[in-house]
Amino acid sequence: MTEIAGGQLLRTQGVTAPAGFRAAGITAGIKANGKSDLALVFNEGPELAAAGVFTANKVKAAPVLWSQQVLTTGRLRAVVLNSGGANACTGAPGFQDAHKTAEQVAASLSDWGTETGAIEVAVCSTGLIGDRLPMDKVLAGVTAIVHELAGGISGGTDAAHAVMTTDTVPKQVALHHGGKWKVGGMAKGAGMLAPSLATMLCVLTTDAVATAEQLDEALRHATRMTFDRLDVDGAASTNDTVLLLSSGASNVAPSQDELNAAVLAVCDDLAEQMMADAEGVTKRVRVTVNGAASEQDALIAARGVARDSLVKTALFGSDPNWGRVLAAVGIAPITLDPDRIAVSFNGNPVCIDGVGAPGAREVDLSGGDIDLTIELGVGEHTASIRTTDLSHGYVEENSAYSS
Amino acid sequence: MTEIAGGQLLRTQGVTAPAGFRAAGITAGIKANGKSDLALVFNEGPELAAAGVFTANKVKAAPVLWSQQVLTTGRLRAVVLNSGGANACTGAPGFQDAHKTAEQVAASLSDWGTETGAIEVAVCSTGLIGDRLPMDKVLAGVTAIVHELAGGISGGTDAAHAVMTTDTVPKQVALHHGGKWKVGGMAKGAGMLAPSLATMLCVLTTDAVATAEQLDEALRHATRMTFDRLDVDGAASTNDTVLLLSSGASNVAPSQDELNAAVLAVCDDLAEQMMADAEGVTKRVRVTVNGAASEQDALIAARGVARDSLVKTALFGSDPNWGRVLAAVGIAPITLDPDRIAVSFNGNPVCIDGVGAPGAREVDLSGGDIDLTIELGVGEHTASIRTTDLSHGYVEENSAYSS
Repeated sequence: MTEIAGGQLLRTQGVTAPAGFRAAGITAGIKANGKSDLALVFNEGPELAAAGVFTANKVKAAPVLWSQQVLTTGRLRAVVLNSGGANACTGAPGFQDAHKTAEQVAASLSDWGTETGAIEVAVCSTGLIGDRLPMDKVLAGVTAIVHELAGGISGGTDAAHAVMTTDTVPKQVALHHGGKWKVGGMAKGAGMLAPSLATMLCVLTTDAVATAEQLDEALRHATRMTFDRLDVDGAASTNDTVLLLSSGASNVAPSQDELNAAVLAVCDDLAEQMMADAEGVTKRVRVTVNGAASEQDALIAARGVARDSLVKTALFGSDPNWGRVLAAVGIAPITLDPDRIAVSFNGNPVCIDGVGAPGAREVDLSGGDIDLTIELGVGEHTASIRTTDLSHGYVEENSAYSS
Repeated sequence: MTEIAGGQLLRTQGVTAPAGFRAAGITAGIKANGKSDLALVFNEGPELAAAGVFTANKVKAAPVLWSQQVLTTGRLRAVVLNSGGANACTGAPGFQDAHKTAEQVAASLSDWGTETGAIEVAVCSTGLIGDRLPMDKVLAGVTAIVHELAGGISGGTDAAHAVMTTDTVPKQVALHHGGKWKVGGMAKGAGMLAPSLATMLCVLTTDAVATAEQLDEALRHATRMTFDRLDVDGAASTNDTVLLLSSGASNVAPSQDELNAAVLAVCDDLAEQMMADAEGVTKRVRVTVNGAASEQDALIAARGVARDSLVKTALFGSDPNWGRVLAAVGIAPITLDPDRIAVSFNGNPVCIDGVGAPGAREVDLSGGDIDLTIELGVGEHTASIRTTDLSHGYVEENSAYSS
């Protein structure tokens, strides 16, 4: 339990921590390995305000195209998520599949007693790009999962399990804000994690009273500072989706600043969990650039270092190879004075004024957490990127994914 | 032997194939492993015209700063090259070391009978970034190597050996242009290979009669089409240097077009050799983008795919995972219609109009050469990037380089 943003973070809870939400996760048979693969998050209301942020990739999966359309209303009753297939690059038939899934969710919820339209249902998919989903299993699963919707904590945890692909652990967290209102969240993402949101699905819930516009502001602020700054392999997905739903069930209307802070805290914690469980990770790395001419410059430099294969392989080898850091910074299109750059690993200076520091080659990087800080000395701005090393495990996991 | 650009390419010869050049490679003791590590290329004239292209990295090694200054004269008498240390990020003392090396080469050549100034001597270094060179060994080596300068082929081959770092084979080639004039070249480069020339050193020689301006045009044209389009790991070096020296000894003055074509052919062959010997390479990959709105768009898209860790690991696993190719293309900042993209591996269509083609998952990529072609269908422009897969070998080689 961590004290943050005026509240407490608990990783034992997720999307069903806030009042007014139910969720479930089941095995629908979409995954060949028999693990759970279908999740539903349901907003009981009384309010249905929602906001979403989606991948910047021009190649967008069918569920992204569908959910973007749905979100123009600023309202969501439910989110259905599947692992075991991305439904990306599947053309018009794939879009029809996403549409049919939403219709089936709406029909099942209506049968169950809550009148729902397909336009109130967002769809998220994750898995291999390029294959159609087994729609018979998806639709049967949707009919079944409505009956599994549980209040309480377990429904959220089941849902968090059902969206996992190469994730080894489910990722969820809830922020209890002074016992009065809450923000909960679940996420998946382990590879294809990069700038425009990382390859990830994330559903956030809150029982705060808030308009769609307020949710949108809080969500954009939070994703910009967290998921957008998580970069495992520079690869941006076709399916990235982050949704924020509010039920208003707490009857508390926090200020925009309070809402921003709470959503940011939940997203930050989920981003930390995703970094820690990234494909092949053996080092959790935070690259911080200080003294930049602008925040954008700091971000570009930090991302450049975080993506550099030679820096990442050196970190895998626990090698304090600061020269590769300088080479990566030097090619970044930013304001730079090579003779002012300083670098430190875990607080140990390895480069000062662009030249090696005494003892630089002996810095011990054998631990699992590496703090790589770069001081540019040309301004006052700063930014951080979370990343990981480039390991044999990453190569292994990604060299035989589809076959 | 290959017929090209009006001549014949021979990989058994290099910088000493053109008349008027001598070269040598020796063990000066800079490398700890006792392999040869110092090379000298010497232009006997009668002409001394030269041109150079250098890394775009803002963090430039001392020898780059020195050689850029020297090249402003458009003249070169000699190039001294060392492996075993990059002399990068070594500050003012490192620059003094590069300067002293050039002075020692000039003094030794003058003693040997050819009056030479330090301003006529370019310096190139490659190896670990951040350490000073062992100058006692470098200077003693420079004194000794002048006496080893050999005409004929062996001197060039010895020089090509002496610049190797993680290269497993020396890289050289000579173009015999109708028996009348020649272009020779040698290069090193296996990792930290990327856009702004790839991390590489390359010395090209010709006995054609040409001005420094003509050489400069030929060199810029050739590097733009070859070394700039070789991208092993997206990492740009602090030491990239490509030099072109002419002796005029053939008394033949080719047209600019003939010179351009010959220099291009030699650079293209050396780039091919560098791709084939890249760190950890198990697949030699050519990514071609056709149908782009501009050549720049084609290049950006091809480079994006060539750098994508998920595409590269899939290719290592012989996995025709075309969805990752679409995800990589989709994030490129170019004109794009997702529904028009087609992809083929070695001529086998795997994606048509943005959707998987029948049999796409069964394409056999077990061979060592992969031709990955992407048709955007939005214009008439094309570009290719040479790259490699991302293998366990690459991770292994780069996770324990400095330690």
